[in-house]
Amino acid sequence: MREFVLIHNHAPTDPDAVRLKDLPGSGRFDLACRFVTQTLLYSHGVRTDTVAHLVLNGPPNPPVTITVNGSRVRRLYPDERTTAVHLRRALAADPDTEPHPGIFVRRIGLEELLEEKKGAKIYYLAEDGTDITEIDPEPDSVFILGDHEGPTEEQDELLRRKAHATVSLGPVPYHADQCVVIVHNHLDRRHPPDYASP
Amino acid sequence: MREFVLIHNHAPTDPDAVRLKDLPGSGRFDLACRFVTQTLLYSHGVRTDTVAHLVLNGPPNPPVTITVNGSRVRRLYPDERTTAVHLRRALAADPDTEPHPGIFVRRIGLEELLEEKKGAKIYYLAEDGTDITEIDPEPDSVFILGDHEGPTEEQDELLRRKAHATVSLGPVPYHADQCVVIVHNHLDRRHPPDYASP
Repeated sequence: MREFVLIHNHAPTDPDAVRLKDLPGSGRFDLACRFVTQTLLYSHGVRTDTVAHLVLNGPPNPPVTITVNGSRVRRLYPDERTTAVHLRRALAADPDTEPHPGIFVRRIGLEELLEEKKGAKIYYLAEDGTDITEIDPEPDSVFILGDHEGPTEEQDELLRRKAHATVSLGPVPYHADQCVVIVHNHLDRRHPPDYASP
Repeated sequence: MREFVLIHNHAPTDPDAVRLKDLPGSGRFDLACRFVTQTLLYSHGVRTDTVAHLVLNGPPNPPVTITVNGSRVRRLYPDERTTAVHLRRALAADPDTEPHPGIFVRRIGLEELLEEKKGAKIYYLAEDGTDITEIDPEPDSVFILGDHEGPTEEQDELLRRKAHATVSLGPVPYHADQCVVIVHNHLDRRHPPDYASP
């Protein structure tokens, strides 16, 4: 299973703070939406072998982790707005529930999520990392990314300690959702998923 | 200069048909928006060496080509909605004008655009193409993509005739905006742009 984690330190944890008419002004919620769709969608399909974890650390009630599981999710579309509606509904739901098929919400943060993934290979995406073509991650890996301002110092330290390797994707710094697309393409080529063409 | 062309056969050419609350239902205008932002933005910057051409062939007045030039564009943000507002304003403007800095609108279609690019190397992205790693396109190239339903038979024929090569990006079919990210990453690695880190 491929797993991607976005540590989003600015995205609100109150559903009423997510304004559909101004997702960027809602703690860069647009980034959270694109992260989910680029992690889980390819042309005309959902990546059934992939999971997206959003660790939301914005006000007023951090942390909240929303997990979208590609093998179960329904009605996930590529645009930001419909995804924002799904995520907002998850924020409004009781913790430890599945308010929409394949979308789970929990009151845990990065440390607890990392603890859960202890058995898996964890790759931390950072500009000073080793190039992905040299590292060649396994398909069953967890890739962790920061938001537009990057992880905090403490998060960075924790991630470097827990990660199997830090990974870079080339000489240009990319948005988190662009990083996901590039990592997927790397893995698709080396470890074609079931939904790849033969 | 890197140039990307999206042939969008469903996107409306009437600004009033672009509903910001339902971009997917507005002839998949969400795809047009993501194509522009993924073509021109990287983390905290605009790709000043890159141009996005949107060839819109939807009702009621096709064709319309909107060109967004990375070296001139102002106030381009990564989210779909603000980009939709820019593009809608371009559709409302008189043809052959620059209604917003770096955004140009013209009443031309694919054939005329290809005629303009006659001197450049043209690459047509198609699933049956040669892998991009084998082709290794030059940085000064034009990459042409279809929308969610792909080019028509006539467009496909024209493109195969005019293109230097047809290019594939791996075994999984991607959304047009995901293709752009993958092509950029390929070029960034082989021909680092000015804004790449040293």
